[in-house]
Amino acid sequence: MHKNIQTFLACDAEYEEADVVLFGAPFDGTTSFRPGTRFGPSAIRNDSFGIETYSPYCDRDLTECKVFDGGDLELPFGNTERALSMIEDYAKTVLKAGKKFVMLGGEHLVTLGTIRALMPLHPDLHIIHLDAHTDLRTEYLGEALSHSTVMYQVWKLAGDGRIHQFGIRSGEKYEFEFAAAHTKLQKFDLSGFKEMTEVLKDKPVYFSLDLDVLDPSVFWGTGTPEAGGITFKELMEAVLMLHRLRVVSCDINELSPHYDPSGCSTAVACKLTREILLQIAR
Amino acid sequence: MHKNIQTFLACDAEYEEADVVLFGAPFDGTTSFRPGTRFGPSAIRNDSFGIETYSPYCDRDLTECKVFDGGDLELPFGNTERALSMIEDYAKTVLKAGKKFVMLGGEHLVTLGTIRALMPLHPDLHIIHLDAHTDLRTEYLGEALSHSTVMYQVWKLAGDGRIHQFGIRSGEKYEFEFAAAHTKLQKFDLSGFKEMTEVLKDKPVYFSLDLDVLDPSVFWGTGTPEAGGITFKELMEAVLMLHRLRVVSCDINELSPHYDPSGCSTAVACKLTREILLQIAR
Amino acid sequence: MHKNIQTFLACDAEYEEADVVLFGAPFDGTTSFRPGTRFGPSAIRNDSFGIETYSPYCDRDLTECKVFDGGDLELPFGNTERALSMIEDYAKTVLKAGKKFVMLGGEHLVTLGTIRALMPLHPDLHIIHLDAHTDLRTEYLGEALSHSTVMYQVWKLAGDGRIHQFGIRSGEKYEFEFAAAHTKLQKFDLSGFKEMTEVLKDKPVYFSLDLDVLDPSVFWGTGTPEAGGITFKELMEAVLMLHRLRVVSCDINELSPHYDPSGCSTAVACKLTREILLQIAR
Amino acid sequence: MHKNIQTFLACDAEYEEADVVLFGAPFDGTTSFRPGTRFGPSAIRNDSFGIETYSPYCDRDLTECKVFDGGDLELPFGNTERALSMIEDYAKTVLKAGKKFVMLGGEHLVTLGTIRALMPLHPDLHIIHLDAHTDLRTEYLGEALSHSTVMYQVWKLAGDGRIHQFGIRSGEKYEFEFAAAHTKLQKFDLSGFKEMTEVLKDKPVYFSLDLDVLDPSVFWGTGTPEAGGITFKELMEAVLMLHRLRVVSCDINELSPHYDPSGCSTAVACKLTREILLQIAR
Amino acid sequence: MHKNIQTFLACDAEYEEADVVLFGAPFDGTTSFRPGTRFGPSAIRNDSFGIETYSPYCDRDLTECKVFDGGDLELPFGNTERALSMIEDYAKTVLKAGKKFVMLGGEHLVTLGTIRALMPLHPDLHIIHLDAHTDLRTEYLGEALSHSTVMYQVWKLAGDGRIHQFGIRSGEKYEFEFAAAHTKLQKFDLSGFKEMTEVLKDKPVYFSLDLDVLDPSVFWGTGTPEAGGITFKELMEAVLMLHRLRVVSCDINELSPHYDPSGCSTAVACKLTREILLQIAR
Amino acid sequence: MHKNIQTFLACDAEYEEADVVLFGAPFDGTTSFRPGTRFGPSAIRNDSFGIETYSPYCDRDLTECKVFDGGDLELPFGNTERALSMIEDYAKTVLKAGKKFVMLGGEHLVTLGTIRALMPLHPDLHIIHLDAHTDLRTEYLGEALSHSTVMYQVWKLAGDGRIHQFGIRSGEKYEFEFAAAHTKLQKFDLSGFKEMTEVLKDKPVYFSLDLDVLDPSVFWGTGTPEAGGITFKELMEAVLMLHRLRVVSCDINELSPHYDPSGCSTAVACKLTREILLQIAR
Repeated sequence: MHKNIQTFLACDAEYEEADVVLFGAPFDGTTSFRPGTRFGPSAIRNDSFGIETYSPYCDRDLTECKVFDGGDLELPFGNTERALSMIEDYAKTVLKAGKKFVMLGGEHLVTLGTIRALMPLHPDLHIIHLDAHTDLRTEYLGEALSHSTVMYQVWKLAGDGRIHQFGIRSGEKYEFEFAAAHTKLQKFDLSGFKEMTEVLKDKPVYFSLDLDVLDPSVFWGTGTPEAGGITFKELMEAVLMLHRLRVVSCDINELSPHYDPSGCSTAVACKLTREILLQIAR
Repeated sequence: MHKNIQTFLACDAEYEEADVVLFGAPFDGTTSFRPGTRFGPSAIRNDSFGIETYSPYCDRDLTECKVFDGGDLELPFGNTERALSMIEDYAKTVLKAGKKFVMLGGEHLVTLGTIRALMPLHPDLHIIHLDAHTDLRTEYLGEALSHSTVMYQVWKLAGDGRIHQFGIRSGEKYEFEFAAAHTKLQKFDLSGFKEMTEVLKDKPVYFSLDLDVLDPSVFWGTGTPEAGGITFKELMEAVLMLHRLRVVSCDINELSPHYDPSGCSTAVACKLTREILLQIAR
Repeated sequence: MHKNIQTFLACDAEYEEADVVLFGAPFDGTTSFRPGTRFGPSAIRNDSFGIETYSPYCDRDLTECKVFDGGDLELPFGNTERALSMIEDYAKTVLKAGKKFVMLGGEHLVTLGTIRALMPLHPDLHIIHLDAHTDLRTEYLGEALSHSTVMYQVWKLAGDGRIHQFGIRSGEKYEFEFAAAHTKLQKFDLSGFKEMTEVLKDKPVYFSLDLDVLDPSVFWGTGTPEAGGITFKELMEAVLMLHRLRVVSCDINELSPHYDPSGCSTAVACKLTREILLQIAR
Repeated sequence: MHKNIQTFLACDAEYEEADVVLFGAPFDGTTSFRPGTRFGPSAIRNDSFGIETYSPYCDRDLTECKVFDGGDLELPFGNTERALSMIEDYAKTVLKAGKKFVMLGGEHLVTLGTIRALMPLHPDLHIIHLDAHTDLRTEYLGEALSHSTVMYQVWKLAGDGRIHQFGIRSGEKYEFEFAAAHTKLQKFDLSGFKEMTEVLKDKPVYFSLDLDVLDPSVFWGTGTPEAGGITFKELMEAVLMLHRLRVVSCDINELSPHYDPSGCSTAVACKLTREILLQIAR
Repeated sequence: MHKNIQTFLACDAEYEEADVVLFGAPFDGTTSFRPGTRFGPSAIRNDSFGIETYSPYCDRDLTECKVFDGGDLELPFGNTERALSMIEDYAKTVLKAGKKFVMLGGEHLVTLGTIRALMPLHPDLHIIHLDAHTDLRTEYLGEALSHSTVMYQVWKLAGDGRIHQFGIRSGEKYEFEFAAAHTKLQKFDLSGFKEMTEVLKDKPVYFSLDLDVLDPSVFWGTGTPEAGGITFKELMEAVLMLHRLRVVSCDINELSPHYDPSGCSTAVACKLTREILLQIAR
Repeated sequence: MHKNIQTFLACDAEYEEADVVLFGAPFDGTTSFRPGTRFGPSAIRNDSFGIETYSPYCDRDLTECKVFDGGDLELPFGNTERALSMIEDYAKTVLKAGKKFVMLGGEHLVTLGTIRALMPLHPDLHIIHLDAHTDLRTEYLGEALSHSTVMYQVWKLAGDGRIHQFGIRSGEKYEFEFAAAHTKLQKFDLSGFKEMTEVLKDKPVYFSLDLDVLDPSVFWGTGTPEAGGITFKELMEAVLMLHRLRVVSCDINELSPHYDPSGCSTAVACKLTREILLQIAR
């Protein structure tokens, strides 16, 4: 007779023994179009039992990894700065214990919380950013903190040449101009991803995956679908290169499960979470 | 840093100290029309945080009760008899420990499992059965075990005059004739419910709630909606009388949440679960 | 050849000539369960053409009224206080011009913005509050500004005995205790509504309608459905008494249209908007 | 080995022996808001197997009646007059064979086709019309043939005092004025229905049921939901009086099943079809 | 204080100054399977604010173009010929003023209205037709005017060799035979599109885009999904060639938004509308 | 006047004259995640009228083939073994009459029924198995008969080297190891399919198509979506090779239509059914 413990598929390590900590950041407070990513992490946890622990892609099994699932942070509603602080604090605790984390968003702004935790530890951090959108606005309707400004905020912390953007196909003109000067931006696809992994081989790297980088045909459970994205196979090829890098932590964002009642988008997110964990926990 | 324990709202007692055990029986193997009640108990648990612990109906708070949530039984698919045995075994364990249970179905056939556990302990058991359907078929497409035969199976164990049926508005003609001879059946509504509570005051009583007794306007997340049901207020009035009875255990069945993506049917089930727990745990 | 002007059904008066101003406050930044009320006002405007301008309930026609539809405020995301200020400013402008307004939410917190605008003009303001929830929390996850604290915030401005709550069926125990001391709260239904209209006859009155006061069977397109609500006919009876009062302005909140793709909840909101306008513009 | 014959529940009589002919008129060509009633009759046929043949309401069984299900007419798209002619022709054929029919719409305009077939045979025909809408417009966007003009068209054939309207709660002002002069109209509910059955006892009567007379909470799978309708029980009480009348034929209209994926609206239509057949076939 | 003007993203030019007129033709009266394209143009307008004005594909910004959005035509229901005449009249007015138009359907038959307006001005008009279906039937259930006959009707006006069909993967055998004799038809894909742009360089060209040319995985909000279509990237490549042609006007058809509640299909239509406007307004 | 016979598109041959028998096996009793494939065959039949009888892929027309549609078997609920026996019996009857069949599932376990019928007639039978999942478990939650064990069960009948698996991307590690020893398994795609058709040219072949081999972007109406599947075009290429083989019968499984209300998945299944019939009936 035991209580109902619910973790992501096979992530049943105790905290102390875990190498990787999985946790949810169910925040969507600045989402400008259709909200609902707050339901992302619990949907991923709930539906993870529909997939297998074994990956035929990398021939490894999640049961061999030591991952702790800490559940979702209980973030406030309507106070963006406080939510970011709570994310930052949780990430710091995990990092201080010598562990990596995989954070499940939530909207993309949650990345700012974790980058704030990581920068003091890794001043030379590089950020790999897969997304449909530039996320480089300086403000949105007067607000500096927004899912559409998050990479601009990250740039303020990390500086020029540190953000490697792929799959980008939407943004204001000035954002693309900013990127030309300050980040490395690949429009539309993942060209150059492999080369980048070679260049960054010895650097600490943070992998930030906005799932809307996928074409909406593959992933339609998201707030701002943007046609013309990459395929699942293209994304998997990139993910399968992560073990070549010194990945210090990751996030997976922007699943809004209520907009895809078929559950396919959640299944995509589950499979990618499994594969990223298998790469990170190597 | 703790794992993600997920229980129904405020049902966080340890097993040893608990008076009532809540558990899920996610079985829908004999559902003849639209399946999906297997997702009922987890939906109730997930969405229970949308309601309050306090009931303005009976002025009590669930935080004052000692309820253990054991999660869902891991029932096999495609083997009806084995699934019923697992339910029976779990119920027996709980009953032997001197506790009551509230089982969340699943389809209505799960009630046969618990009645098998209860009859040896309470040979004079009465069953209060709220439902749109008689559930008194002798077989369905050649099968004796079916959601539409469950009360006939219960009758074989409990005998004449023990099943008190309310709200019934669908069945074959022979089922209504059977009821006239062997059960107490109230067509369409809850007339006589209060009187029954007085008659049964000293008897051990099992309360079996098929949520489709409610009108589909109130509860449409179910496999076989049947127009012309009772209102939520009528059902609540009945539930609020349960503390007058010697209720030994209960079940709440037939939520099929995918057929109501608005979440309203799940919210109805959550609220009734809270109220029934508050009645039972008195 | 003219541009596409879109107003609520027949609300095509110019601002200067209008007696009543309709506007949307598409804010859902503190919604704690399922967001989406930001889409409420535009859904009401879009679907209003599915109903008639004539009301057989009060035998009046919206074409005879002078209502200006100002569209939706462009509120920021992630900054609760700034959104409330913008609502307050808009309401003040309308009130200074000697007009009344009907605000379409958005979540219920938007009411705090309009009450801030109204209190200086009507220090003796009474608030009629129809809702499923008390909305009297002092904080929610540490935040003072929340859809579940809004009536507590209003009470801080208006004081004891000014808030008349009806249909309430959900809240924490301490909220009901607070109501007993500081507001007038009718549990579950609209009993006493008519008597109240007589008592308040000469007072300035604000009518705040949280549509979830309706039973979810009638209105399921909302974030936090709460079973056991009032019927549409009961609500209409109350609305049809509004012309007996000195109503200074109104709001209609908590339609979250994506959770009811059938459009019925939006149709309910449209019809109530028409009827409230017909009462206010008399 | 036989082909897949699909009829409404138990309506498997051969044409020659049948007393009643059931057929579908899947036309929605003039629907002004949300189309889709073309899928109504097939949905009713498909889902009819979810209900029982026996009615506990009138204690009769559909297996005892002789009903032929002729399937759906293959009506053209985009040619209103031709579609009406095909309906008229089919109805004439059935009537000439001495049978009654129950037509499943489709939008309400299909009634004009059957009335054209009936008037020559029953010049003193009375029409009982249950609906949310008056349907008495003289034109709609310049078109004389429309779902919103159908009862005006019927009036042109049948004359004053022949149309008995119940449950009406929407229309333009002039329509209600027209009704006051030319039809018998009961606003909002079924008051006077029983009295009417006594007055019309010896007259040939056509029963035309627009399912949107029901409250949208009961029946939301329809194009133009109109809040404030009658309950299922109220409608059933009226239907159960039909055998007292000399009903020559009936129709059941305006199910648009795609707007209610839960299937509840279709289940309501199925049950009412069963009950009406049981009344007619007596 | 201004009324709620709603245009497609950034299309806020006044009529007089505009080079291009955008307007909706919300007609679906001959749709033979699942209707609902009448909601297409308003959905495109509503959701256009989810995308950016800037195109990283052609490095141009919609804010630099002069486009007037005239809203939707108010077309009658049930009268196909009259609806076509109204479309023809509107198009003629725009063309006489020396402007181009982009029409948002509606079903594909609306193209017949605009071609009638264009042929007298451009007797040598070529039509580029992207579609899953041939649309070359001579009649459908006895009707000459139908969404499945529209290109046959256009051929009657324009003659042999003028219709350039791409992506076609569905039709009756005789339609493909007709195409072999009278049009230029490319099965399945866009092979030869580039070559065609060179051949037609100096001709007046009308671009008619039936969005169901896209694979249903990309665009499922449509009445007649037909598997095996082209990808979004393939379509974009074709669209980006339009500025090489002398395009006199365009249409974009067959979005039926209610069949894709995720909004992805509408987002696809919005993005293509933006890109086509950027090509046309060069 | 004829009854409503409903067959798959143009499959209206009488049994005696038919070369191919189409029938449904609406069984989903062992589905472990999301049930609903029981509705697959009727959905395919209902929506088949949305596609054409002519195939531009192979330039043949279904009206030229002699296919009998026997409708759906009436399988029991909750008794796996009995359901399989009924499938086996039906298949045997068809095969004895010298005909082929195409069975529409239902979940994949239905294939065990037909293989039992086929093995005695074709001891050297080869099975071509397209699927996302290995289906090679030895048991699932203690049950030997399951949709995830079906190919292991088939292997027990057919032996080593007889099962040719393509598109597989999910399974437990031991299943892939089993496949390496006993079946021929192609991970992820259809590589080697053409070569296989040459090798098997003279062998009796059964073609078993689990539609979830398709990427969920193409086919999301299924219980266990698994990202990374093949495209529709890739599948069509394989299907168009079937006429080169001595195909003795086929099945098409795992459409769960309620999880794709857009109807696209059903349309995919309809089109593949047409193409497979055209290949088989050659």
